[in-house]
Amino acid sequence: MDLNIKAIVRVIGLLMILTAGCMMLPMLVGFYYGEIDSVKAFLAVIIPSFALGGSLIMVIKTPKGKLKNRDGYIIVALCWIFMSLIGALPFVIQGCIPSYADAFFETCSGFSTTGSTIIPDLTVIPQSMLFWRSFTHWVGGMGILVLAVALLPALGIGGQLIASNESPGPTFSKTTAKVSDMAKSLYLIYTVFTIVEIVLLMFGGMSLFDASVQTFGTVGTGGFSNYGDSIAHFHSPFCEWMITIFMIASGANFNLYYFAITKSIRTIWQDSEFRLYIYIITAFSLLIALDLVMTGTVTNISDSIRAGFFQVASIITTTGYATTDFDLWPTFCKMMLFALFFIGGCSSSTGGGIKVCRVLVLLKLIKRNITTKLHPNALYNIKVDGKIVDSEVIQGITSFTFLYIVCFFVVSLLISVDGFDLVTTLSAAGTCLGNIGPGFAKVGPVLNFAAFSDFSKWILSFTMIAGRLELFTLFMLFSRRFWNPYR
Amino acid sequence: MDLNIKAIVRVIGLLMILTAGCMMLPMLVGFYYGEIDSVKAFLAVIIPSFALGGSLIMVIKTPKGKLKNRDGYIIVALCWIFMSLIGALPFVIQGCIPSYADAFFETCSGFSTTGSTIIPDLTVIPQSMLFWRSFTHWVGGMGILVLAVALLPALGIGGQLIASNESPGPTFSKTTAKVSDMAKSLYLIYTVFTIVEIVLLMFGGMSLFDASVQTFGTVGTGGFSNYGDSIAHFHSPFCEWMITIFMIASGANFNLYYFAITKSIRTIWQDSEFRLYIYIITAFSLLIALDLVMTGTVTNISDSIRAGFFQVASIITTTGYATTDFDLWPTFCKMMLFALFFIGGCSSSTGGGIKVCRVLVLLKLIKRNITTKLHPNALYNIKVDGKIVDSEVIQGITSFTFLYIVCFFVVSLLISVDGFDLVTTLSAAGTCLGNIGPGFAKVGPVLNFAAFSDFSKWILSFTMIAGRLELFTLFMLFSRRFWNPYR
Repeated sequence: MDLNIKAIVRVIGLLMILTAGCMMLPMLVGFYYGEIDSVKAFLAVIIPSFALGGSLIMVIKTPKGKLKNRDGYIIVALCWIFMSLIGALPFVIQGCIPSYADAFFETCSGFSTTGSTIIPDLTVIPQSMLFWRSFTHWVGGMGILVLAVALLPALGIGGQLIASNESPGPTFSKTTAKVSDMAKSLYLIYTVFTIVEIVLLMFGGMSLFDASVQTFGTVGTGGFSNYGDSIAHFHSPFCEWMITIFMIASGANFNLYYFAITKSIRTIWQDSEFRLYIYIITAFSLLIALDLVMTGTVTNISDSIRAGFFQVASIITTTGYATTDFDLWPTFCKMMLFALFFIGGCSSSTGGGIKVCRVLVLLKLIKRNITTKLHPNALYNIKVDGKIVDSEVIQGITSFTFLYIVCFFVVSLLISVDGFDLVTTLSAAGTCLGNIGPGFAKVGPVLNFAAFSDFSKWILSFTMIAGRLELFTLFMLFSRRFWNPYR
Repeated sequence: MDLNIKAIVRVIGLLMILTAGCMMLPMLVGFYYGEIDSVKAFLAVIIPSFALGGSLIMVIKTPKGKLKNRDGYIIVALCWIFMSLIGALPFVIQGCIPSYADAFFETCSGFSTTGSTIIPDLTVIPQSMLFWRSFTHWVGGMGILVLAVALLPALGIGGQLIASNESPGPTFSKTTAKVSDMAKSLYLIYTVFTIVEIVLLMFGGMSLFDASVQTFGTVGTGGFSNYGDSIAHFHSPFCEWMITIFMIASGANFNLYYFAITKSIRTIWQDSEFRLYIYIITAFSLLIALDLVMTGTVTNISDSIRAGFFQVASIITTTGYATTDFDLWPTFCKMMLFALFFIGGCSSSTGGGIKVCRVLVLLKLIKRNITTKLHPNALYNIKVDGKIVDSEVIQGITSFTFLYIVCFFVVSLLISVDGFDLVTTLSAAGTCLGNIGPGFAKVGPVLNFAAFSDFSKWILSFTMIAGRLELFTLFMLFSRRFWNPYR
């Protein structure tokens, strides 16, 4: 054991302060709405967190020596677990979610930008708690951007490697200065997206509170709404289209916007992952729109196109908003959406899932295999954006995808002890692993996860974090070699 | 275009004669049972097939030049399609399956050793037709052994490569003499299995006819029975255990038996694929048995263990027999079985699916990825049975698995237009692709595929053949490069 314990403890201290800092905003919302209970609950978490976190940082000195990969993995995994553990407390203390297992599920769902909920009736939840619940999406969405641009590439994590190696334009070097430059630009873009969407939704008729909550869910690709019927509540085609556009924008690679600004707007379309992402969205949306009209589920063509694009964007970006109960749609439409469960957003986006860039490489791998079978001696490298993809990166992508599928089955199996039907079980596992939000049948878009046992809720909570951290980061902690590196 | 057309036509001619030859046996059964209609129907196919096939072989001279890979792929794909096209005719001519789409589905299901059926009531089908239907399993099972040991390795097909490269003992060289030696031994083993099982089942109380039909379904890992309630019909624990053992034996690598005979019986257990196969069967069976008892689905422990082993063996070997309606089992048991849909038998067995050896390599790939992430500079090769697996073979395995999953989704999507529920749709696609037989919900073990549209039946028929030929062989025919190799 030669973990850099001091560094890890310092980071945890920092994290407590950060989480407490994040709670200041919903506490202010509580003041505004006169929700004294909620304000007290937030204070009961904020004050000890500041005190404990601050003393940890002051007592423990800055450690000597560089952080190793192993320290990095532990820190990342602990970050998400600790933030959720602390973030769940206000719900329990205030009393609106009495069970800690439920509150932890809800907070994991928030920070991991999943959007699955265990709350059967949102109308009884105080405004400030609803705000905190949605604000965790925004924090989690930004958090994953930090990881994507700063931490994960440095740690050499598969999909993100491609994102950094294969982005158009100069690849950013590993000097901290440049990475943090890049990161700052991404936060700026993320913040601009947030503000623009809030303004547009208010223009579409929402209150500042409603617009903020839906925006946090959109740009973080989370999917919590403060209404039980999600976006359908607003009956506003304008808002639905705006949310569709911002979901698609948030599910794309944020590096592309940086390059679009610093170089040329055309770099966006030169990115093969982005093109495939847009092709998939367009094809799936139009097919669903067609099926909705042909089966008579939606009578109006413009309504069906809007519904198709909204729902496809919502699922592929792993947001999980709904404008209708898509569980009542024809099987063909549901199959299309279920397939999207396993695609997910682009690399370096706030979306989850397997990621479009991996799907792209896997498709090229199939094509390559056909060619080499026909011409066994042919040399054939897999290229993305004109650059050869290293075979190590390919093995990283394939092993990730397979681990994803194994996790999907294992989680389904674990939660199947609750005895729900197969569709509920499979879609609950798929939606939590992909950080989407709703599933089908008993976890459909107008229903919730309240009926699951505490055991399943804990499993699904960690599944959401595992999905968010792209599996390996969390699973590495369970590997013998991690704890015994010199064996 | 420089396909070796002559060779292909000669093979088709040979195939017609072979298929007609196979029909002689059920025709004799028809004579025995006095089913004149059936005898006439068989003759109406046998005579023209002999005549046409014979003249094709006589008219077309033996082609010069070696067969290329592309010719090989076309021949293999055409074999299975033509055999099914011809094999379906007696059902239509006799009239017991009036629709050709239905008869083609049933015959594809037979030759591909799937065992899915469109026949709602087996009691109205003549004995000779039931015999033919099951006999196709036996022919198909042997057919896949030919491919596995003789054709596919020479063509360099992924999973089989491992089978030949990684089998214990000396790998067989590519000289035709040795391959055909090997093939002969395997047919002998296959035939011995058949005879021994028939005798044992008759010892367990079955008639020669019943024993033959269930044996064809077992050793071919097909799953057609001549009774609507499958093996449950016999109410014989002895027969159930015998069938369990022969299913497991038929789902294992037949090369192992060859090596066990020529070298030592211990070579079987030295094979990592076989060990994993047995571990999976044991673990899944015991977990299911436990859940069956704990949920009170089965009251008796020995009954639940028998049911667990039977059903797990039936699904993992892709046979598809049932001793009970497992669609009524608890969700946990159904999830276990559904996970087995995606594993399948061992390489060079008569079973279908992704195959245990591929799962083994993929699991090792995940383990490798964790290690290399922690120690980026470590050299780490994936080994099976102590030998390094070539990176080309790994890419073949990963691209096959991914193509398998893509096919699963595409087929589900295509048949979802029929509007069945998600479980029916997904399990129908999964069961046909994996050559298993029954699925869940409306295609559960006591139900059938009759309700699907003709469109879906054609799709599922080709899915069964595609699954049987390990996808690439069939999909290659749709690749532009196949038809335009020099572009």
